[in-house]
Amino acid sequence: MVSPKYHVFVCTSCRINGQQSGYCYSKDSVDIVQKFVEGIEEYELSGDVMVTNTGCFGICDKGPVVVVYPEGVWYGNVSIDDVEEIIESHFEAGNPVERLII
Amino acid sequence: MVSPKYHVFVCTSCRINGQQSGYCYSKDSVDIVQKFVEGIEEYELSGDVMVTNTGCFGICDKGPVVVVYPEGVWYGNVSIDDVEEIIESHFEAGNPVERLII
Repeated sequence: MVSPKYHVFVCTSCRINGQQSGYCYSKDSVDIVQKFVEGIEEYELSGDVMVTNTGCFGICDKGPVVVVYPEGVWYGNVSIDDVEEIIESHFEAGNPVERLII
Repeated sequence: MVSPKYHVFVCTSCRINGQQSGYCYSKDSVDIVQKFVEGIEEYELSGDVMVTNTGCFGICDKGPVVVVYPEGVWYGNVSIDDVEEIIESHFEAGNPVERLII
């Protein structure tokens, strides 16, 4: 497997016991995942960007948390309204969104 | 946030609708997560390695799937018995386990 240019991990508070509950989940992170998936298609970036939902990163007070590898950019307090800016600025233009970096 | 030296993502088939079902989950990937967590503590690598469970990577036929960033090493068909080798060879000695790379 060749890694994508940007692999976006979005915490949806999946627990390994099968429950989905926690801070990121309560702050609409499932909608954030869907907005990323739709936006990446819209911007025709499917070849460059992969989106994966995750369990807790352990920094719930900074949630919703979005991590972008291989760069290792950590975004916090992400809202649905921030997703388009991340796609456009970071994934399309190559400039991470500084104001969201934690 | 500074990314860990090795961020290990293990698919536990978390779906964003809250269900946890799928191929990796059916092949004991929850136990794989727990084995990583315990092993990393045992090998005193907590400062270098972070473990996060995830939803589907879309390559279920190669599951259970384990991805290591920032390197972008993709492991497939991982079993509980492989976890100690990954910790020892990859995370402790710096040599990815070639036979498991997909």
